[in-house]
This record gives sequence, C-alpha cells and structure tokens, in this order.
Amino acid sequence: MIKARVTVTLKNGVLDPQGKAIEGALGALGFDGVGQVRQGKVFDLELAGDDKAKAETELKAMCEKLLANTVIENYTISIA
Amino acid sequence: MIKARVTVTLKNGVLDPQGKAIEGALGALGFDGVGQVRQGKVFDLELAGDDKAKAETELKAMCEKLLANTVIENYTISIA
Repeated sequence: MIKARVTVTLKNGVLDPQGKAIEGALGALGFDGVGQVRQGKVFDLELAGDDKAKAETELKAMCEKLLANTVIENYTISIA
Repeated sequence: MIKARVTVTLKNGVLDPQGKAIEGALGALGFDGVGQVRQGKVFDLELAGDDKAKAETELKAMCEKLLANTVIENYTISIA
C-alpha cells in the first residue's frame, strides 16, 4: 500500500477571502506581524499496490479530474 | 520575513464524511484501488521578523487558539 499526500493551494493572484478572514482573526487575537495568510487543502490517500511511478501518474490524473481546480489552484503530490 | 506552513489533519478515529465522499467520487471516476481518503487543511503564513524559534512558539499558539480544533485535529508546523 502506498500513502500519498496531495496539497492543493490557490494560485498567486487568486483572491482568498478565507485567508483574509484568518489574517484578521489572528490580528484580533493579538498576534502581531502576521502578513499574508492563504488557505489550502490537503488530501491523505491510500493507494493499493507498490508501484510508486504508477501511483504518481494516477494521483496526477485524480488531481486534474477531481481534487484540484487547475484554473485557480496548484497541486503538489508527495508519496511516502 | 518567515514563511511557514501549518497542516491541520483530523485525528485518527474521527469520522471524515468529506474524505468518504471523495473516496466514492474517485471510485465513480474509475480510479481503482483507492483506500482511505482523509481531507485536511493547510495554511501558508507570512510572519514578520527572522527569529524562527519565536515564530514557532507563536505559530503553536495560533494553532491552539484558532487554526486547529485540538479536540479532533492534529497540526504540524513547518518553517521554510
């Protein structure tokens, strides 16, 4: 079994109101010096088999088709 | 300026309906051999200053107070 982590983040220039809200909330809680905050998603997946190259190809396809919106999001895949 | 990434994931044993839905959707798209899927959150933060130790202490406090619900979630901090 292969364990993989897919991280999906917003592309630069894409507005992130959720991140902005967190920025404001951290400031309100008294944390100074917090600059930009951006929120993304992380997926931990278990895949059958032991072929890491095949798993990576499959994970890329999953990202393109479902996990990420590639118009506004980037993704990175890391296989444990 | 320090760039940090905070990753928040559900603890083991906590139900993750969103992950289950993704599991089902991946199966429906024809991806076989997908086992458990669990979804988490990632925060990319910029902090003023250059003191990494201080930044880590501050990030821990942010996680405890706002970014993570430590009853059901774990967090990891990585400073670039």
